[in-house]
Formats: sequence, structure tokens, C-alpha cells
Amino acid sequence: MNRLEKQIQFIVEIDKVKSVFRRTKLFHGTRHENDAEHSWHIAIMALVLSEYSNRKINLLKVLKMLLIHDLVEIHAGDLNIYKTDPDAKKKIESNAAKRIFKILPENQGRELLSLWREFENRETPEAKFAGACDRLEPVIQNYMQKGYAWRKHKISYAQIIKINKRIDMGSRMLWDYAKGIIDECRNRKIIS
Amino acid sequence: MNRLEKQIQFIVEIDKVKSVFRRTKLFHGTRHENDAEHSWHIAIMALVLSEYSNRKINLLKVLKMLLIHDLVEIHAGDLNIYKTDPDAKKKIESNAAKRIFKILPENQGRELLSLWREFENRETPEAKFAGACDRLEPVIQNYMQKGYAWRKHKISYAQIIKINKRIDMGSRMLWDYAKGIIDECRNRKIIS
Repeated sequence: MNRLEKQIQFIVEIDKVKSVFRRTKLFHGTRHENDAEHSWHIAIMALVLSEYSNRKINLLKVLKMLLIHDLVEIHAGDLNIYKTDPDAKKKIESNAAKRIFKILPENQGRELLSLWREFENRETPEAKFAGACDRLEPVIQNYMQKGYAWRKHKISYAQIIKINKRIDMGSRMLWDYAKGIIDECRNRKIIS
Repeated sequence: MNRLEKQIQFIVEIDKVKSVFRRTKLFHGTRHENDAEHSWHIAIMALVLSEYSNRKINLLKVLKMLLIHDLVEIHAGDLNIYKTDPDAKKKIESNAAKRIFKILPENQGRELLSLWREFENRETPEAKFAGACDRLEPVIQNYMQKGYAWRKHKISYAQIIKINKRIDMGSRMLWDYAKGIIDECRNRKIIS
């Protein structure tokens, strides 16, 4: 298989994330969101909200990370961050990443695998800001959907704060906003 | 409304493209694709296939264009490129673009409206390559789905070539590939 054929095979394969559904519902409407829609949405969030990053970031790198970050779920599924052991999640997703990026020509697969790992490790300014966008979207969705996924899976206010506080690592400003709407949900007795 | 509130309002509003369905089906599976999924997919295509651009491109600009290019369809719908008068399409979409980007803070709305217009005009290397990705995706989908949307809407081989030949403006290599699979569909009597 030549270089372009491998790239096309990858492009065709990743179509499958459109059938991996998340626990959250769309901002409007009644159905759940899939991983492709989520990835598109948080890429636009990064584009529009980049001015709020705590540190100077390379936006191209952030967009690449966000576009590919959920491809692992083709094999790993959407593991519940509130209920899955982080080490187990890491192992399952790491194997899935190797499998999916191996379809590409070797140099390109290696580049995307490395970007995916950088995102997962949340150490660089880009990974921290990308991570903030990834967390902020479901917070706003839950806010708009009267706490739908939080209530359905019985997630407490304390758990929500603990998991989403990492938004702060990427953007203090966006965490202030997120904390504000989470608190509003508690004040309205949507969560407790 | 402050700056961040306007940006969040925009982020919530664009969720609506997830309910704008295209004429093409997913690469796998039986349902039609929506605009958010399509935009995500062609952004990854641009990322993976950028080496085939005829001219040197700023990939960040290409990704921004692709992520936002279909937001106009929230108001304009998915107009059939094979069957809509180009001037009428342009006018409808131009009004829709002003409406959607006006939600953002003024300087940011102006920047995205300008990027959207650049994409539509297909004059810069970035717009040409982004346009090539936007056309290539449905060609591959139709190829994988036995010409589904082409057959359903009775699009001839000559029309398919005429509309998709613009891929050549962005990437000769990707047009060679696209032409090859379109020809294969004709040889297999899927289209005529």
C-alpha cells in the first residue's frame, strides 16, 4: 500500500468515532453527542477562547490535539471519567492509540501518537489549554440540560468540582466561568 | 453582555449544525452525515494530507476555515451544489454568515467572517486546499457507498467531474486520486 492509500485508509477508519456516543447530550436537542461532533466543537472553542489561556500557546498544536484526542475511543469506548480507574483507563487508551495511528505512514503515525500522548499528559501549555476546552464543553452542556448526565450517573457537586478543576490549569478565566455555572446548578438544587 | 458571554453564546449557537444533515452517508453505516461531523472529518483530512497541497499553506488557517465553513448552514441549510444557482447560493450563505458571526465580539466576528469569505472565494492557496478537502470527502463517501448520493439525486458522471475537478486547484495529487475512484464508479456502472 502506498503512502496516500495508507492515509486514505486512516481517514476512512476514523469515521467510526461518529458512532461512539458520549454521556452528554447536545446543547440543544434531545440526543447524545458523538465523539466527532464533540471534537469539532471543542476545536472551535479553542479557536474562539484561546485568548484566555494562562500561557502563550501554539494554536495549531492545540487544534491538532483536539481533533485527534478521541480517536482512541474507536477501540476503547467512552470510559466514564468519574467512575473508571485512571491507570486502567490510561492503559486501555494507550493500546488503542497505537492501534489507530499505526494505520498511517510511519513518520506521520508517530507524530500523531506523540501529540496524543502530550495531550494525555497535560504538561505542556497546549495540552493544558486543550484539556480545559475538553472539560468545559460537557460542563456547559450539563448546565444547559439541567444537569442531565450528572444526575443520570449520580455525580455529586464535590466530584464535579474535583474533575473539572483541571480547567484551571489551562485557563483561570474559563475555570471561573465553569465554577460559576456549576455553583448555579447546586444553588438551583440540580446537583448536590 | 461581556466578551466571554458573547463567545459562549456563539459556542452554544453553533451546536445547531449537528442537526443539519448532508446528502451523503457516513463512510461506514447507514445514516447521513451532519455538518459538524463533516467539518471535523475534513479538518483531519487537511491535517493528514497537507503534504499534497500544490502550494505552501498555513495549516492553521486551513483548519480554521474548515472548522467554520459550514456554520452558515444553520440558517441557509445544505444547498445542493449540483442543483442550486451559484449566485443565489452565494447570496443566501453570505447573509447567513453575517448573522452567525455577529454573535461574537466585533473584532473576532469580523476575523471569522473574513476567513469564511476567503474560503468561499477559493483564491488563496489555503482556500484552494481547504476546498479540495471539502470536495474530496463526499467523493470517497460516495465511492464507499456505491454512489449513494449521486444515484439518488441522478447526478451524471460529467456533472461529478465538473463539480469535483476543482480539487485540482488545491491538489493535483488528490484530484488524480479522486478522478481514479470516480472513473472506477463509472466502469462498474454505478454512475453513467
